[in-house]
Amino acid sequence: MPLGANSYGKSEIRLVKVGRDRGLRDLTVDISLEGDFEAVHTRGDNTGLVATDTMRNVVYALAAEKPLDSLPAFGADLVEHFLGHERVSGATARLREHPWEGLPGGEHAFQRGAGGTRLHEVSGDEQGVRHAGGVEDLLVLRTAGSAFAGFERDRFTTLPETGDRILATAVAARWDYREDPDEADWARVRDTLLAAFADHHSPSVQFTLHRMGEAVLEAQPAIERIHLTLPNRHHLPYDVSRFGIEDRGDVFHATTEPFGLIDATVERGR
Amino acid sequence: MPLGANSYGKSEIRLVKVGRDRGLRDLTVDISLEGDFEAVHTRGDNTGLVATDTMRNVVYALAAEKPLDSLPAFGADLVEHFLGHERVSGATARLREHPWEGLPGGEHAFQRGAGGTRLHEVSGDEQGVRHAGGVEDLLVLRTAGSAFAGFERDRFTTLPETGDRILATAVAARWDYREDPDEADWARVRDTLLAAFADHHSPSVQFTLHRMGEAVLEAQPAIERIHLTLPNRHHLPYDVSRFGIEDRGDVFHATTEPFGLIDATVERGR
Amino acid sequence: MPLGANSYGKSEIRLVKVGRDRGLRDLTVDISLEGDFEAVHTRGDNTGLVATDTMRNVVYALAAEKPLDSLPAFGADLVEHFLGHERVSGATARLREHPWEGLPGGEHAFQRGAGGTRLHEVSGDEQGVRHAGGVEDLLVLRTAGSAFAGFERDRFTTLPETGDRILATAVAARWDYREDPDEADWARVRDTLLAAFADHHSPSVQFTLHRMGEAVLEAQPAIERIHLTLPNRHHLPYDVSRFGIEDRGDVFHATTEPFGLIDATVERGR
Amino acid sequence: MPLGANSYGKSEIRLVKVGRDRGLRDLTVDISLEGDFEAVHTRGDNTGLVATDTMRNVVYALAAEKPLDSLPAFGADLVEHFLGHERVSGATARLREHPWEGLPGGEHAFQRGAGGTRLHEVSGDEQGVRHAGGVEDLLVLRTAGSAFAGFERDRFTTLPETGDRILATAVAARWDYREDPDEADWARVRDTLLAAFADHHSPSVQFTLHRMGEAVLEAQPAIERIHLTLPNRHHLPYDVSRFGIEDRGDVFHATTEPFGLIDATVERGR
Repeated sequence: MPLGANSYGKSEIRLVKVGRDRGLRDLTVDISLEGDFEAVHTRGDNTGLVATDTMRNVVYALAAEKPLDSLPAFGADLVEHFLGHERVSGATARLREHPWEGLPGGEHAFQRGAGGTRLHEVSGDEQGVRHAGGVEDLLVLRTAGSAFAGFERDRFTTLPETGDRILATAVAARWDYREDPDEADWARVRDTLLAAFADHHSPSVQFTLHRMGEAVLEAQPAIERIHLTLPNRHHLPYDVSRFGIEDRGDVFHATTEPFGLIDATVERGR
Repeated sequence: MPLGANSYGKSEIRLVKVGRDRGLRDLTVDISLEGDFEAVHTRGDNTGLVATDTMRNVVYALAAEKPLDSLPAFGADLVEHFLGHERVSGATARLREHPWEGLPGGEHAFQRGAGGTRLHEVSGDEQGVRHAGGVEDLLVLRTAGSAFAGFERDRFTTLPETGDRILATAVAARWDYREDPDEADWARVRDTLLAAFADHHSPSVQFTLHRMGEAVLEAQPAIERIHLTLPNRHHLPYDVSRFGIEDRGDVFHATTEPFGLIDATVERGR
Repeated sequence: MPLGANSYGKSEIRLVKVGRDRGLRDLTVDISLEGDFEAVHTRGDNTGLVATDTMRNVVYALAAEKPLDSLPAFGADLVEHFLGHERVSGATARLREHPWEGLPGGEHAFQRGAGGTRLHEVSGDEQGVRHAGGVEDLLVLRTAGSAFAGFERDRFTTLPETGDRILATAVAARWDYREDPDEADWARVRDTLLAAFADHHSPSVQFTLHRMGEAVLEAQPAIERIHLTLPNRHHLPYDVSRFGIEDRGDVFHATTEPFGLIDATVERGR
Repeated sequence: MPLGANSYGKSEIRLVKVGRDRGLRDLTVDISLEGDFEAVHTRGDNTGLVATDTMRNVVYALAAEKPLDSLPAFGADLVEHFLGHERVSGATARLREHPWEGLPGGEHAFQRGAGGTRLHEVSGDEQGVRHAGGVEDLLVLRTAGSAFAGFERDRFTTLPETGDRILATAVAARWDYREDPDEADWARVRDTLLAAFADHHSPSVQFTLHRMGEAVLEAQPAIERIHLTLPNRHHLPYDVSRFGIEDRGDVFHATTEPFGLIDATVERGR
């Protein structure tokens, strides 16, 4: 049977590099390659196949050789390295950076920071190298300024309309650059996302999602489009009036299952 | 800024239905909708928006109304229900079934079964309804008949060639039907995957992946293509000779990070 | 400040051994030691401290040297090894075995089996060696024969009484042997637990827990006491009558949070 | 068979309360009760048994009635409520608080904060009410000032001595108060733990653990003893010299399995 689209790689390569100043970069790296590997799949001929174990070695080797002070530059180095193999026609390096913040009391001591996991993905092929940025697990919550009303009602609709609810989500975003990004870009995008999450009255998760995407595109000319995924981590009012207690609407049951999932791309007009 | 592709839905709806015979179906259902929702995103106008809470209610309601003896039929009922809403142009129901097997000692008593999680996904739009099957978390392992040699070697390659290794993976597969499937199809595909995993000498995960896909397409004319993802859960020989112990190559360190990830589609020739 | 009770060790040592017949044992091993280590904690003097890295090496080394056909024997070998170090006064080896079952189609091919994770814990000190068995993640469910009624009612009680509910739990059990166990004991205890889960009308999780513990003590004279932990994985009836659908009480919302947690020891009378 | 020690309760009750100032408390609450419940276990007589569903209701009800500005006070209220039931002789409320920090840009908007999960546990019986504080998942790391040398060497020891390693751990601590704590105590203990993690040369995890415990007891007279669990999240130097690259010892493989686990209590002298 013919082989269709295929790729292979090494995932969850855990890399930490300590700088001369004893600061650190803490990354999880995934490498993925595409190329002329039909014989590997159909005939058991491994000629030209870069072992995934070798990919792992390359990640640590380039981390040692290079300064590792820019994820775009490190990702591009990785991609270019793998494109140098004869049978490889496409390569992707996906970098996730885990946040650490300095401890006030100690030299060279850190605690896990807030602000979500940074993503940076570099892909390359014969047409060149492309960059995407992103963030995962950016947990945010608003206790005011969020409503949900005016939606469709039918015989299966039991959700009451509300003018005041908790809005909580774990932002996952991924944006495509139309030019090479600077190392400092990411923090600006993340800060724009956080500010836009909070700067408006929210009539729905969808509206807040679009607002966040729009704010990023307005502030960052180098970004072509942004894809956002916002799970709605429902906080349900807990009815305490049935216990004879005055219900001020301030006590909530935070749920994990099921959850709403809102997903959209915001892009520049043509 | 213009809104690009977008969808929304309810995820992780946990549904259990007990049959007249006291057997059970244990499902996790995700619903996802597409449609004319630009005003929701850009103007905060929720008119016509089906609340994700309503989606949840519909899942339980249709489960109560219908026999739920076929995942393809239940998925299609869900999709057709949501397509009945005016602004909805596309709907997807993703069903995951958790396996239970009867306990020998007891009536109506079950233990969690082996064989991975069943997937069934139904998508519909104006062009009709399409079915895909799948499996997740199908953990399999071979202690013989697996090798890895003849691959590319360069200065970053330290992996030795081996004619005898442990091959372990967690199969994730997804296949597209070109006609409506029967409820009983899934078990046949799963059994074909298991048999094909074990029926050959494996020179690489890629070869085994292709062999499994090919076996499914050969055995199941209703399937158009199959996509397989096989993480390589490496079992590294532990060198005990350095402790003065005879090394028979039979003791392994099972690792979780990093892992190889092999991904390909096998499809019918044209 | 004085040092109180303390211990240290290596956790999550992932060991797989392939037998001559190409069967396998798949274990996660935790080693824990106690002893005369006050100077390590208070003066930074590591003399006599067995490195946790060395513990890991010992696990693989003894697995290579010994047949590994009995968890009680392997655990005792580990404990005796570590007690041979001068400053070690107590040692514990905790073995968890992951289940695999042979695939019908293939030689030396396996899939992850049902029946939960086996535990076996061996502890030793100057007074000798003691064995405990156990099981974790044994997921079981009954669709009939379970009720909950007659419990305390006050102004905070909203739970209705029920004569027919789903009973679902993930059994965790740990039992103490009063003599050295055979390798085959574990399967008998597990089967006794499964049979007892299903063999009675259940008026509460507590009653079922006690029944399971009693059944094990009756069937296994070598066991002194058994501790059981049963989370109550609530399956809540989903009210579909509000949608105008006949409610047969057969559709449930399976929840993960919050859950009841029932915990007790059953022991032989004096 | 006689019933031994037993308890039951409700776990993972997810409670969020919004204050008048729109700040929030985000808690996961576990309730556990002991008492005269032998007939429940052995005869199926549920008289006097507080349903775990009722426990859940009580948590939300008291959260609505009370200000919830002090975890010690809220925990004590819960414990005293349950001790009021006739058959209950002991009650424990275990509160875990999830950290949120205000977003600079927005009113009433928050992101998940750093600093680990706060614990506060209140237990009560006829002898009174006792408080314990704690922290979980406090991820900390040092890039300098940590060594490991002078430990026991035998034929199974392959770990080299090092005068400079990365020290990384996820602190879990639990401390017992000998008097009722203030709400503000917890932050002081957490800050003391963080400062003590970083303020010394570390010859071992054990020494750092003891230093952290000692610092807390010195700074907090209200604390009687503290128990610390420090997993050693090993960062292994990755040897890049075999690739012909100068090895500066600054590139590490961060591992998750296996890990060292160091566990001790530090207590006041008698």
